[in-house]
Amino acid sequence: MTVSEVKSFFYDFQLTMDKILDYVVTAFPNNEIVYWPPGGSRVLVTFSQFADRVRRVAAALMDLGLRPGKAWELGSKVAVLEWNTLRYLDLYYAIPSIGAALFTVNAMLAPKEIIYTMGVAKPEVFVVNIDYFEPLLKPILDNVKSIKAVIYMSDRGKQPSQDYGVRMIPYEDLLKHEPLREFPEIDERTPATMLFTSGTTGPPKGGYHTHRGLVLHTLSTALAVKNPPVNASQDDVAIVLVPMYHVHAWGWPWSTMLNGHKKVVYPGRFDWGHILRLIHEEGITFSAGVPTILYNILNHPDSPKYDLSRLKFIVGGAALPEGLLKAAQARGMTVISGYGLTETAPVLTIAYLRPDHKDLSPEKKNEIYLRTGIVIPLVQLRVVDEQDRDVPRDGKTIGEIAVRSPWLFREYIGDPEKTRNAWRNGWFHTGDAAVWFPDNYVKIADRLKDVIKSGGEWIPSLRLEDIISTHPGVNLVAVVGVPHEKWGERPIAIIVPKPSYESRLTEDDIKNYLMQFVEKGEIPKWWIPDKVIFVKELPLTSTGKVDKKILRDQYKEVLSR
Amino acid sequence: MTVSEVKSFFYDFQLTMDKILDYVVTAFPNNEIVYWPPGGSRVLVTFSQFADRVRRVAAALMDLGLRPGKAWELGSKVAVLEWNTLRYLDLYYAIPSIGAALFTVNAMLAPKEIIYTMGVAKPEVFVVNIDYFEPLLKPILDNVKSIKAVIYMSDRGKQPSQDYGVRMIPYEDLLKHEPLREFPEIDERTPATMLFTSGTTGPPKGGYHTHRGLVLHTLSTALAVKNPPVNASQDDVAIVLVPMYHVHAWGWPWSTMLNGHKKVVYPGRFDWGHILRLIHEEGITFSAGVPTILYNILNHPDSPKYDLSRLKFIVGGAALPEGLLKAAQARGMTVISGYGLTETAPVLTIAYLRPDHKDLSPEKKNEIYLRTGIVIPLVQLRVVDEQDRDVPRDGKTIGEIAVRSPWLFREYIGDPEKTRNAWRNGWFHTGDAAVWFPDNYVKIADRLKDVIKSGGEWIPSLRLEDIISTHPGVNLVAVVGVPHEKWGERPIAIIVPKPSYESRLTEDDIKNYLMQFVEKGEIPKWWIPDKVIFVKELPLTSTGKVDKKILRDQYKEVLSR
Repeated sequence: MTVSEVKSFFYDFQLTMDKILDYVVTAFPNNEIVYWPPGGSRVLVTFSQFADRVRRVAAALMDLGLRPGKAWELGSKVAVLEWNTLRYLDLYYAIPSIGAALFTVNAMLAPKEIIYTMGVAKPEVFVVNIDYFEPLLKPILDNVKSIKAVIYMSDRGKQPSQDYGVRMIPYEDLLKHEPLREFPEIDERTPATMLFTSGTTGPPKGGYHTHRGLVLHTLSTALAVKNPPVNASQDDVAIVLVPMYHVHAWGWPWSTMLNGHKKVVYPGRFDWGHILRLIHEEGITFSAGVPTILYNILNHPDSPKYDLSRLKFIVGGAALPEGLLKAAQARGMTVISGYGLTETAPVLTIAYLRPDHKDLSPEKKNEIYLRTGIVIPLVQLRVVDEQDRDVPRDGKTIGEIAVRSPWLFREYIGDPEKTRNAWRNGWFHTGDAAVWFPDNYVKIADRLKDVIKSGGEWIPSLRLEDIISTHPGVNLVAVVGVPHEKWGERPIAIIVPKPSYESRLTEDDIKNYLMQFVEKGEIPKWWIPDKVIFVKELPLTSTGKVDKKILRDQYKEVLSR
Repeated sequence: MTVSEVKSFFYDFQLTMDKILDYVVTAFPNNEIVYWPPGGSRVLVTFSQFADRVRRVAAALMDLGLRPGKAWELGSKVAVLEWNTLRYLDLYYAIPSIGAALFTVNAMLAPKEIIYTMGVAKPEVFVVNIDYFEPLLKPILDNVKSIKAVIYMSDRGKQPSQDYGVRMIPYEDLLKHEPLREFPEIDERTPATMLFTSGTTGPPKGGYHTHRGLVLHTLSTALAVKNPPVNASQDDVAIVLVPMYHVHAWGWPWSTMLNGHKKVVYPGRFDWGHILRLIHEEGITFSAGVPTILYNILNHPDSPKYDLSRLKFIVGGAALPEGLLKAAQARGMTVISGYGLTETAPVLTIAYLRPDHKDLSPEKKNEIYLRTGIVIPLVQLRVVDEQDRDVPRDGKTIGEIAVRSPWLFREYIGDPEKTRNAWRNGWFHTGDAAVWFPDNYVKIADRLKDVIKSGGEWIPSLRLEDIISTHPGVNLVAVVGVPHEKWGERPIAIIVPKPSYESRLTEDDIKNYLMQFVEKGEIPKWWIPDKVIFVKELPLTSTGKVDKKILRDQYKEVLSR
């Protein structure tokens, strides 16, 4: 039989996101999804009812004339600006399932940046929560001419307050559509989502993730969280606290359903008092988010009222501080780290335990939880030097994390230079500096651009900041590298003192404090900053991080003067 | 950036089996593999040491000049004839990883059939355990001229007893080779294994499974067995009791490692006394196999000496009899069904529980375990009538199971008619008759060719055999359909009575016995066979199943006479 004869009847099963929906509704039809926004009422749908919603929304979107994409080629884009709602969950499944791309608009960006990213993405349809975001609607429509229809959503039956000169469709109309019977056949390399990096070094850069990437990411993360200490199971009740406008909410909207968790909860707009009540009333046992989310759960005034001892939590997006881990453990929680980027869909590593860790002491286990983790299935990871050679797996030598996986950005749209710079020698370079342990776990040391290169060796600014921040007189600290004639670069520390220390904290205080860590063998002596500068405030980026670029520029001559 | 520019540096991650090895050795380097053959000594290697073995074997095989395959195109084939050993495990990873195809020779076939399948497969290298199979070597080499080298294996340091006129390499030499540093890049659609169906209706038919299919099958089965009641975890100790020459030992050699089980045990040649000792001494908690394997574990004379209460067992390959389930449960075991075919790599369904089953009574749970199960991720399954329409999901109407998945035979090599017949309307037809329940679980009723078509309705021979076999006077029974003028076909029962009943069991006894089940509403009255025939023995196929083809032929005129 020739290849063409076989091709005529063989069904070449594509890894498309509708297959995930099809599986979960077949295997777990009676599992539950709860949507309960702050001040609103509780909505419960089964997976089976949910699939019906998705099929209605998908059919209604097809009626709007959206074009499906092809392999490596974006189809129509549907922009969504919304909190963590059941409606957003509908769209997570419905938009990709018809071959269009879900473009998750980052609600935390400044309006100017939202308009910039939408102008680059050129969505044809804009789905927006008008309870919160109606003021953005006019400036967006004025600037983003690709938008042909707006689908508006509200928890309160709100109607648009004016005529925007474009077709306006209430979201509820989508749910009245006849359900789509069969999802169209789509090549698995068709883009399913479009995302922008947060862009601390210039404007946000867009890219896309394919169906294939997301299906495999879903299978792999689902498997990885079944390792201890999380031991995810059907008995778990999950709440999705990673914003759905932020890297697919790390894929939880898909993987929690694949894992058959008996209930998955969506809290609407983030309101920590409300979320604590949900954790209690819905019996939540599993969640994830950036350290700030965990911080809020632990430190909200209502927090002490609630039992958090059943809650397992994966921290990603930034390093898990040891103090936060211990505060969570003091409440009985299980907390571990994970790691990934927008470009990586996002999950690359999770700090799960393995069988030979079973009998470790709690302190030793904490050392593992505080690492960035170990690869999940289908991720290959190296820590490399500037010539792309593996650095020693000694837990000390810093290198850059480079990865291979089916769920990586293939390119930064419209930025060949950035694309080429990331994809070198067949490996995607993350721009994250890390150390590699003999047991294959990694720990992020720094963003690569923030690492200080002194005499050919790397000094991680984060580690120095961690130590300096434990000095009782320090409120905020940034360590950056500045040019040095002999060493190339040397570290300096810029410190905002606590008010009570403002007039008395000295450069020597800080250097002597650091010497104690040198004497304990925790850092080498040559890491001690050449200069300590005291300021009233530190410059911040739009997302609230210290803007080290400005600092490096401002103090670039401080060691040569 | 144009597509060709992007292609030049983007790494298109292929789903190849070396990625599974790479993951398990990175994530679980210190997990253990134990090989302990009957009468031999215990060998323990860590996953890390195992990966080193695989890289040595792979490099040595490459030196033999094996050709890698391409997408949908077999490369060189390496035939293996061996029991469940560590060596076979090496080969499960090493042969596919270099792009060659692992051809698992079925040790249970008659020598003539072994030679037939090897003649079709045309392996270039033959890896054979000469402790057991040396007598086959000469007839195989005389008939299969493609074999250029023989690699011989022995647990006892045995050397070949004669010169076979072909290059003979001891397996140990492979392990002395320098390890392969990097596995070659292979298209994920390259065949990784070559298998033959058991072929109850003609000569065995060959086909292949691709890397892509096996990687996805591994991920999906690994996820599925983490559902209750199996709840597979790192704490489990698995023993591979499915013969490795039989459909990839259902994929356990790969999925048990992916799931990070702290230890995986290989028992060598099947010896039930030895296996029971291994279950005890190695602390086995997880295994799988055909009903006969479970039967042997429970009924071996030594069995009562051992505690089986921690053992979880998945039965596949044939229906799980209720009596066997209850006997295993009486020993404290957890047993559920699974289902698949050689053509499906093999797993399609497993009878795992879902959250809404948690509070079911033990009897209701048993009903689920006795079903053939529910799909695992990335399997789409329908039960269809002869026009490929879904049959009602009523638990009664019989149809044929048709499936879609990434891990199906694309074709039967050299048999376009059989290929076309299986692949109809984009679905692979399994030839298994089943009923479909409202909750999406399926239960096999019969092989489609054994189903009796009476008056346009289907009667499952297996169900009638199940009931008749519970009559105290019945030793063996086969129910087949024979031509009938009015109804098309009607069932007849052919019975081997127990010796004590030989002269007194009558046709009426059987019919009256069946009437009790009609009265209880368990079967319809029109299922009662038109004729009951008593015989001394039943004809068997080479694999020990009742040969219904011969019976249908022998009694084809019994209702028209």
